[in-house]
Amino acid sequence: MDPRIREHAETIATHSTGIEAGDTVVVQLPPAAEDLAVALHEICGDRGAQPVFLSYSQRADRAYKRAADSFEEPAHRRALYEETDVFVIARGGANVTEGADVAPETNAAYNRAMETVKRERLSKRWCLTQYPTAGHAQLAGTSTEAYEDFVWDAVSIDWESQGAFQAQLVEILDDAETVRIRSGDETDLTMSIAGNTAENDTGEANLPGGEVFTAPVRESVSGVVHFDLPLYRYGREIDGVKLRFEDGRVVSHAADRNEELLTGILETDEGSRYLGELGIGMNRAIDQFTYNMLFDEKMGDTVHMAVGSAYPETVGETNTVNESAEHVDMIVDMSVDSVIEVDGEVIQRDGTFVFEDGFEMA
Amino acid sequence: MDPRIREHAETIATHSTGIEAGDTVVVQLPPAAEDLAVALHEICGDRGAQPVFLSYSQRADRAYKRAADSFEEPAHRRALYEETDVFVIARGGANVTEGADVAPETNAAYNRAMETVKRERLSKRWCLTQYPTAGHAQLAGTSTEAYEDFVWDAVSIDWESQGAFQAQLVEILDDAETVRIRSGDETDLTMSIAGNTAENDTGEANLPGGEVFTAPVRESVSGVVHFDLPLYRYGREIDGVKLRFEDGRVVSHAADRNEELLTGILETDEGSRYLGELGIGMNRAIDQFTYNMLFDEKMGDTVHMAVGSAYPETVGETNTVNESAEHVDMIVDMSVDSVIEVDGEVIQRDGTFVFEDGFEMA
Repeated sequence: MDPRIREHAETIATHSTGIEAGDTVVVQLPPAAEDLAVALHEICGDRGAQPVFLSYSQRADRAYKRAADSFEEPAHRRALYEETDVFVIARGGANVTEGADVAPETNAAYNRAMETVKRERLSKRWCLTQYPTAGHAQLAGTSTEAYEDFVWDAVSIDWESQGAFQAQLVEILDDAETVRIRSGDETDLTMSIAGNTAENDTGEANLPGGEVFTAPVRESVSGVVHFDLPLYRYGREIDGVKLRFEDGRVVSHAADRNEELLTGILETDEGSRYLGELGIGMNRAIDQFTYNMLFDEKMGDTVHMAVGSAYPETVGETNTVNESAEHVDMIVDMSVDSVIEVDGEVIQRDGTFVFEDGFEMA
Repeated sequence: MDPRIREHAETIATHSTGIEAGDTVVVQLPPAAEDLAVALHEICGDRGAQPVFLSYSQRADRAYKRAADSFEEPAHRRALYEETDVFVIARGGANVTEGADVAPETNAAYNRAMETVKRERLSKRWCLTQYPTAGHAQLAGTSTEAYEDFVWDAVSIDWESQGAFQAQLVEILDDAETVRIRSGDETDLTMSIAGNTAENDTGEANLPGGEVFTAPVRESVSGVVHFDLPLYRYGREIDGVKLRFEDGRVVSHAADRNEELLTGILETDEGSRYLGELGIGMNRAIDQFTYNMLFDEKMGDTVHMAVGSAYPETVGETNTVNESAEHVDMIVDMSVDSVIEVDGEVIQRDGTFVFEDGFEMA
């Protein structure tokens, strides 16, 4: 197999999740990723960890969801997750539009049923990563070989120096009260992050990593935002999303494409109308937009926000953790005519941070 | 997909396991069998059952076993199995010799660690079946298309009439005390089945089915047997196995090919030196030997015996259930110069049963 697959597995097992003797591990991979499964099983054996190999088939998922009338939490999946220490999950479907004919309300109902199981998983050590397939290459508009290079390069950067770079932003946000994001004519959003924690993502739970993220104070978000970069969700592209927030809640929404899918997401539950995450992309090694949120949200010159669940580790004790069965990230391009202000001071202008060369004060 | 895959899934779900609303289901399939996974997930959704999709990768298994120094029971797999109602497992690797370089003692150690988990699975509703792949076609010496026909024909016979045919043998064995099997010059084995139960296999736990099986009384087996048909186990062919039994125990063994693998099997634990099963193949729809025990042991004109664990449902209350981490079936060709005697009476001669046309009294 391509030696980069074993390197990828090694990064997952050592850097991202720290698999060690006695760990119970769930490896959940698409059928195409058998090579990565082999490499991960080898590492588990070598370290005295115990793997269970789940298949991540979007074709099977689609078939199940379309056939079912309703969903409830599966007791056997819950039991498995409760006894698992480490989750390794890779995306890599043959066809990224596999879920295109699953109704938005079906996905919402499914996610509601799986919410507590998902929360169980998120309470453990976990890593979400990518296996390069022809389908994802097609989505990115590249050859399969170029996409392999893109993925394997992105997961194997020097995470220590990346972390040091990002720590400068963490320091700014840690004591901050208010963040304001302005971009073009259609984005001007203000939120409090007082009391919440900024996390330095250096390729652990997400591989690749490369962002600093926190949670807005739940009811503090106010203003309008135009997510001018598209996203793929449930096998369909959502483009040109505009949201208006009042007291933290989405009070109006629109999209240029697949608006009904956005509506379905927002109507999943009460929490899916609130922001759960504010993230700032800082990974300049990801140099192209590939319609894959795992990579796109980490790009430099971008910020992203997720409607839905907050990561508990980012929420201070006196603040509310937004709970939801959803978590959908959306991206604003900050490369032109854009600023991030923290407590009234500009900390990024047109994608360049205050601690970088080339930053212009005004 | 080939419509026979949906028919196969329907047979598994309806005839073999009776999947219904509320069932928690584990579907464990090789990477090649995604079509069958889709069909089974569709049925689960349709019936209100909940699937968990495990991957059955022999490449990943091999990598794990070779890398590990020792094995212990995985707590997360146990938790999953305890909460599962139905297991559907299909074989269908791309390369049937994938496990050829795993040491016999490694397999034995792994099986010992997994024994109680396996027993948990066997206590539920389960079905072991086959997905046709190029690797298994090659093993059988056929084209892939011919092998697909072979598999899908074999799983979809009229199980009701097959069951009625087999019930005639069940009736004979139910009140029997002693079974003696003679074949050629090298097989003359006697055993008691007194108090044990003969099961009529009509495609439930094994699909295809087509045998009547019971357990020998543990210490009663005596004599010699030459298994003149080969078997594949752990990615290698074992051929020409000869066993000598005294007081139920294998006291000497030999094989023409891969004898050390047989030795490893017999040395797994104390129970692997005793017979756990006597089975009599009765499925005349399986008309060719394919080196695949799931099919071969069901063929007419054969008997098979397994060293290792007994199926508890075949063992009467006053008898001992042979426990082992192993269960390895081996076949005797009964088509020529062979008889099965029950309590001194010949009930099969040269493959023809006493209740069939053409049976010769002496």
